[in-house]
Amino acid sequence: MEQELFTINNLWMMVATILVFIMHLGFASLEAGLTRSKNTINILFKNTIIPGLGILTYALIGFNLMYPGENYSGAFIGLSGIGISLPENWNTSLYNVGYTFYTDFVFQAMFAATAATIVSGAVAERIKLGSFIVFSLLYVGICYPIVGMWKWGGGFLDAMDTPFYDFAGSTIVHSVGGWGALVGAFLLGPRIGKYTKEGIRPIPGHNIPMAVIGVFLLWFGWFGFNGGSVLSADPGQVSRVFVTTALAGAAGSMGALVAAYLVTKTFDITMVLNGILAGLVGITAGADVMGPIDAIIIGIVGGALVVIAVVFFDRIKIDDPVGAISVHLVCGIWGTLAVGIFGDLAGLQQVYSQLIGIGAVGVFCLAFSFGTLYTMKITGGIRVHAKEEVEGLDVHEHSMQAYPDFASKN
Amino acid sequence: MEQELFTINNLWMMVATILVFIMHLGFASLEAGLTRSKNTINILFKNTIIPGLGILTYALIGFNLMYPGENYSGAFIGLSGIGISLPENWNTSLYNVGYTFYTDFVFQAMFAATAATIVSGAVAERIKLGSFIVFSLLYVGICYPIVGMWKWGGGFLDAMDTPFYDFAGSTIVHSVGGWGALVGAFLLGPRIGKYTKEGIRPIPGHNIPMAVIGVFLLWFGWFGFNGGSVLSADPGQVSRVFVTTALAGAAGSMGALVAAYLVTKTFDITMVLNGILAGLVGITAGADVMGPIDAIIIGIVGGALVVIAVVFFDRIKIDDPVGAISVHLVCGIWGTLAVGIFGDLAGLQQVYSQLIGIGAVGVFCLAFSFGTLYTMKITGGIRVHAKEEVEGLDVHEHSMQAYPDFASKN
Amino acid sequence: MEQELFTINNLWMMVATILVFIMHLGFASLEAGLTRSKNTINILFKNTIIPGLGILTYALIGFNLMYPGENYSGAFIGLSGIGISLPENWNTSLYNVGYTFYTDFVFQAMFAATAATIVSGAVAERIKLGSFIVFSLLYVGICYPIVGMWKWGGGFLDAMDTPFYDFAGSTIVHSVGGWGALVGAFLLGPRIGKYTKEGIRPIPGHNIPMAVIGVFLLWFGWFGFNGGSVLSADPGQVSRVFVTTALAGAAGSMGALVAAYLVTKTFDITMVLNGILAGLVGITAGADVMGPIDAIIIGIVGGALVVIAVVFFDRIKIDDPVGAISVHLVCGIWGTLAVGIFGDLAGLQQVYSQLIGIGAVGVFCLAFSFGTLYTMKITGGIRVHAKEEVEGLDVHEHSMQAYPDFASKN
Repeated sequence: MEQELFTINNLWMMVATILVFIMHLGFASLEAGLTRSKNTINILFKNTIIPGLGILTYALIGFNLMYPGENYSGAFIGLSGIGISLPENWNTSLYNVGYTFYTDFVFQAMFAATAATIVSGAVAERIKLGSFIVFSLLYVGICYPIVGMWKWGGGFLDAMDTPFYDFAGSTIVHSVGGWGALVGAFLLGPRIGKYTKEGIRPIPGHNIPMAVIGVFLLWFGWFGFNGGSVLSADPGQVSRVFVTTALAGAAGSMGALVAAYLVTKTFDITMVLNGILAGLVGITAGADVMGPIDAIIIGIVGGALVVIAVVFFDRIKIDDPVGAISVHLVCGIWGTLAVGIFGDLAGLQQVYSQLIGIGAVGVFCLAFSFGTLYTMKITGGIRVHAKEEVEGLDVHEHSMQAYPDFASKN
Repeated sequence: MEQELFTINNLWMMVATILVFIMHLGFASLEAGLTRSKNTINILFKNTIIPGLGILTYALIGFNLMYPGENYSGAFIGLSGIGISLPENWNTSLYNVGYTFYTDFVFQAMFAATAATIVSGAVAERIKLGSFIVFSLLYVGICYPIVGMWKWGGGFLDAMDTPFYDFAGSTIVHSVGGWGALVGAFLLGPRIGKYTKEGIRPIPGHNIPMAVIGVFLLWFGWFGFNGGSVLSADPGQVSRVFVTTALAGAAGSMGALVAAYLVTKTFDITMVLNGILAGLVGITAGADVMGPIDAIIIGIVGGALVVIAVVFFDRIKIDDPVGAISVHLVCGIWGTLAVGIFGDLAGLQQVYSQLIGIGAVGVFCLAFSFGTLYTMKITGGIRVHAKEEVEGLDVHEHSMQAYPDFASKN
Repeated sequence: MEQELFTINNLWMMVATILVFIMHLGFASLEAGLTRSKNTINILFKNTIIPGLGILTYALIGFNLMYPGENYSGAFIGLSGIGISLPENWNTSLYNVGYTFYTDFVFQAMFAATAATIVSGAVAERIKLGSFIVFSLLYVGICYPIVGMWKWGGGFLDAMDTPFYDFAGSTIVHSVGGWGALVGAFLLGPRIGKYTKEGIRPIPGHNIPMAVIGVFLLWFGWFGFNGGSVLSADPGQVSRVFVTTALAGAAGSMGALVAAYLVTKTFDITMVLNGILAGLVGITAGADVMGPIDAIIIGIVGGALVVIAVVFFDRIKIDDPVGAISVHLVCGIWGTLAVGIFGDLAGLQQVYSQLIGIGAVGVFCLAFSFGTLYTMKITGGIRVHAKEEVEGLDVHEHSMQAYPDFASKN
């Protein structure tokens, strides 16, 4: 391996790292925009500290859990050490042809915090800040890297005869977040006033421009999320991933536009925004093995699915203020399955492997989230007092307002 | 051509692709910021679906129309096929020394939607959503790639003895958008209450911070728009383009600052914002053939021109809520002409060729936009009802508000 | 040096240039968010014209002052010419192995305006626009490049036996801005109503989401600010800088979170935001010589320091609306000292050199800012009239409002 290609590959991986980083601002903007102004400081606070928590816990333990390395015994959980310490040849292509050790760590660390970010949207406007922080630490620091190891660290999902395939994390990242979101929303219960005798009351987000900024930044960053998952700057592979990522997001917006129009007879911008994300989550598992037509189909179906899922979760009274479960869990499963249906790997055996992966990750994440959150629920409680919820978390937990100069309608 | 340079070139083109992508958020933020809060969902909706529409129509037909390829007969319109299919050697330097086929497509696809984005600002706050979507599909899918082929696809403007020169699209992209904007604003007529017996009533934008975010993101993306138009990572050429792009934007802000102060005696931030864009549009045609001084002059003149043009279009009662015609059409023409006046290609013959290009593109775009929009106008109508316009498009077309928590003055 | 590595290096430097550029939007958003809505146009106006002013003055004189080049005599001030003109071999590795002449200029030009941007936050809501523009021109065009030359241009701080070390500018950039901010805030005096007989009255920022957007964009850009300061794409060095930059920002958020909770018993988002910046400013001087643990310690201490400093400056009635002095001056000094305490260069002699650098830059910047601002103060005055301050600078200096559609509480 020559120095030039190593340097190029590493450069792309670093650029991809920055792109994944800015997705945290995307999540922050989206979730703040789709919730109420009385809880804006709170949701922003969570999203502001998550990157810090994620990077630090990943440095302490996550990276070692996820990539147990040469001495890995094949166990359910592997751990190669505590903290990050430079291996030999860390900055040469002998470490990896695509990146240095430090690039490896920082790219993966940016991914890690995503799982908690996804949860924060679904539990917004009613979870206690302390409970969320504790859960995030455990979920990002322990649950996510264990699951990630199963595939990306050479664990059992990767060692199957027909390996489970999840290119950039429809299951490993998005559904991990989605399962936590589902458990969180279920254990917390719906927001006060959401489901009434008169029916489902929509609680509109307070700042749609913020939500738009968020989704565009997420799409922007997704080119690094998926493109960086090539783990090199290989021109053919990365550009193919760019095309499938662009087309799936585009198709997702159209799928959701049409589906939402059929359901509500309006042009619903929040559905289109979630449709874009649905297409992106959907393509993530197979971004490198799909052709353009595959990507468009996956995106359209994802966009339609998210509309159906949002309606469905409202029916069963799972209150998810931003639609995180529909986007990340439902479309994460869809995208993972799609690897067996479309593209280079399509085949019944692959579908079967995909189902094993989806199921294994689901069971573990459900158990982990339920175990941690339920324990907290029956000990200190995870939900704020009704008075605090009604008056807003910003005043009670932060003694601040997001927009103190403006008169509120409430 | 060696693999290393091919990989570097392709990497830069992919980064440039992402930078052009984020310009769509720039346009969305700018246009939302400079219009009223009762129409914010509507303008954001349009800008959110445009990238999707643009990428998909470009995949379906635009790319083939714009780059008819080897079998091109020299006709006014060439078409190499439907959909995108991989040519041989698509991922090697035999396809192109600067990029793979997929990179080629996705970079150009990101450009394509820009034309419609420009129009959306000028027709804001009164066009029917359906009319805008139909027009955008036709304009991005058919008009833009035909015009683009004339120069970038090897058509007649490129085949002249002294070829028309338009490096990154002052004419091919910006004026195409600008002509559509002019026709749209003309056929729609001004917003209710804009031009009264008492004179011209300013209708201020509702969120200036959004507009600032928009312009900075546009400038940010412009380094990819112009820098990527080098079509390789050539150090000298790309860095020259960066310097001219930086200086022209900087000079545009100063030109508009001074011109606006002379006209209004205030420090008008919207003029400075449009001045930055004016400088950027102005340098786009010749970003690779100008020196630093040229870039500064082009920027200052562009910044001043945009102030004059905004006043002028108000005088003739062409109501352009965001100044899109002044920025993209007037300064697009200015920048295209400037290639004949300054820099490496300056000369009378070049001025002549530039005029031919400006004229040919102008006539075709005027005819195309007038034909499509006028047909829609006399059939189903293109303007919302007065009641809807007064009460806001958000409530009527989207059943939503952008900021439901805040008390409005209106 | 081969063409491939030269092209890669230059590509990274250009990407880093764009990342530093977008930091200006970060500053604009942060400062606008942390001040009141009646002064939003004003603070955005300043931040919108600063990049333009900075790039143009740097082209005219700054670049030549900062890098006097081969003919430099060793004097306190060197000047190699006026304007930017291409040296021989400007676009080859003979000019520099890491970048072309144009890349060199544009990367440095993006840095230059930062000094003024930092000042604008501290003097917000009461300085006259004209005074700020004149001061910015002098500070960015003359003061910053002279100080920069002392180290980065081969001046006396670089020529010491144990050279002063400041990798990416904790002192050269951030403390330069910070000293100007301190002098500006001191000479202007506090905002009306800030320090009353009843005590210190908090004046909350009007738009916390904007502040969050600002800090994330700054962190995003900081990877280019620090990473680009490697001056090549060297995989080991740049990725090490990425890791220290990520960890220090992360640790800064945690340090400030805990420190602020201990002081105020609330979860204060503005402190966490400033804590992130504190960690980033702190790591900037030694981002390439620190290990992961060093970076975490520097970040935590920076995050705690910024909380203490904010309280301290309020005690001594230096009114700094956004905390710029605490972030950029205090943590700039901390980061510069840390180079002597942690990492590869730790040692008493290095501490001594760091103190000399901090002191020399401090004395010069204090004298320069005091000289210019005090002269303006005793001649035309630098502070707006009380009526204008109370009613808002937007209406008086710009005849505009940032959010004209919304009802204000004031």
